[in-house]
Amino acid sequence: MPVSAMSDANFPVDDQGRTYHVECKHGDIANRLVTVGDPARARLMAKKFDKIVFEHSSHRGFLIITGIYRGVPITVVSIGMGLSMMDFFVREVRAVVDGPLVIIRFGSCGSICDAQPGNIIVADSAYGIMRNYDHFTNPAKKNEEPYIITDKVPADSALTKNLTEKLKGFMGGDKVFVGANGCADSFYGSQGRLGSHFRDENTGLIQRLKKTYSDAVSLEMEAHMLYHLAAASTDGEGNPTIRAACAIIVFAGRNGNTFITPEQSVIAVENCTKSIFETLYEDNLGGAELHPTEGSVWEHAV
Amino acid sequence: MPVSAMSDANFPVDDQGRTYHVECKHGDIANRLVTVGDPARARLMAKKFDKIVFEHSSHRGFLIITGIYRGVPITVVSIGMGLSMMDFFVREVRAVVDGPLVIIRFGSCGSICDAQPGNIIVADSAYGIMRNYDHFTNPAKKNEEPYIITDKVPADSALTKNLTEKLKGFMGGDKVFVGANGCADSFYGSQGRLGSHFRDENTGLIQRLKKTYSDAVSLEMEAHMLYHLAAASTDGEGNPTIRAACAIIVFAGRNGNTFITPEQSVIAVENCTKSIFETLYEDNLGGAELHPTEGSVWEHAV
Repeated sequence: MPVSAMSDANFPVDDQGRTYHVECKHGDIANRLVTVGDPARARLMAKKFDKIVFEHSSHRGFLIITGIYRGVPITVVSIGMGLSMMDFFVREVRAVVDGPLVIIRFGSCGSICDAQPGNIIVADSAYGIMRNYDHFTNPAKKNEEPYIITDKVPADSALTKNLTEKLKGFMGGDKVFVGANGCADSFYGSQGRLGSHFRDENTGLIQRLKKTYSDAVSLEMEAHMLYHLAAASTDGEGNPTIRAACAIIVFAGRNGNTFITPEQSVIAVENCTKSIFETLYEDNLGGAELHPTEGSVWEHAV
Repeated sequence: MPVSAMSDANFPVDDQGRTYHVECKHGDIANRLVTVGDPARARLMAKKFDKIVFEHSSHRGFLIITGIYRGVPITVVSIGMGLSMMDFFVREVRAVVDGPLVIIRFGSCGSICDAQPGNIIVADSAYGIMRNYDHFTNPAKKNEEPYIITDKVPADSALTKNLTEKLKGFMGGDKVFVGANGCADSFYGSQGRLGSHFRDENTGLIQRLKKTYSDAVSLEMEAHMLYHLAAASTDGEGNPTIRAACAIIVFAGRNGNTFITPEQSVIAVENCTKSIFETLYEDNLGGAELHPTEGSVWEHAV
């Protein structure tokens, strides 16, 4: 797609109406969505579809798979890592789908609570952790905190409740934890990982997070941007058009320096996929009118 | 690489010493580096190597190509998009290379100055533009600015001077612009792109940037994180170990809603590649000791 085919620098699309980075167009994407970081995980999830009706890899690293699950169209999108990638995904998908969106993120995280590797964390809220850049480079701002911690943004409560119940049903109640997720701009500095190559001043960061939010359970890199954009979405009259939730596998225990085993990973992915698809299947998106079937990739499959 | 093979949650590496996301290890990466966003661009650049000695695609979307240019090892890494991806790259590369690093980013941007599509912008400094999330979700913070603009961080001056001279030589002096680059956490809201699906409050943002920095020339998504981490790098005694610069092709003219043509893009990539490789070739990295040749991927090629 040559950039020159575009006509609007505010929201560039190609001559077929595909967005610039995610490369999605009207009719590719269902109202019910799952977003993951890793394309391999997206393909694993897609095996649970009754039928795959659309697949596209964008030149900037996004993978879109739309399939049918129990008669309902669902789209899985792999977005890579980081808050900016979540922003690309949410905005470009929102631009090409009519009707409400319900989005469940399926990610991985480090646990800073009692959840062990292989357990699942449901983020009933998320907050951002950003480096306060000027603290590090401007002597006049040395008295400011080295990291900015944002307010918490809640997940959609009904969606979170259903997702948690499904996960407890498939995984067992003792393996599912619910709490506030910290969404960092770095895997390293702003997640409190210690190293000697950079001036990070993050020795006390995890303690500060726990002190700020007594329900802090996990650290990852995308959930707060998802919840924030859902909260900032609007139909023009101030009503949000996106509801969101997150199920996150614990890959590392940050307290005990423990890691998930391949066997635990397989079990967790299997159970999370079923839980997420069942939650999306049951969600009626507020009974609102959904994206038209006519002309969509699922037109002849539902 | 199973996560379970890892032993340190502070800086996980696999049993071969490869970092977790970029998947680079000691001896894969040269002291002279180019970082791009798009893997296709990395492959185009690699055609200018006399010889490619190493290539690896990571499971999380990074592509590493190490080659020999006029007898000197240079590594090109494609990192995708966004400040978090730059952070992964800089930190994981820094962890596996001995000696100083010199890094030139080769990116694309929107111009907010007189530079036209197909022209080149050299970012002699960069600043961050981040959404002030709480402004949008917390009524008590409604009086704060909706976007946070950081201080400027300078590029390495000698590297920038050499790069600018090379670019002017290959492209023509009238096609090369120098100034401050704004590095945003979103392609949309925090780059002043207007839309109706989200509450962005960004109508006056580009004017605010120009008022804050009279030399503001361009908007993209990675340069400030690169310059910031170079400034925050330390050998343990407070001396930075990374020097950085950026050459950025103008893809879109944000003033006139104009876009680069495929022909202009080919010319710009060709000339930037030559300019960047020549600049890295000539740079002596302060005369410091470089990464050992013995055991490296370039051991038998230089």
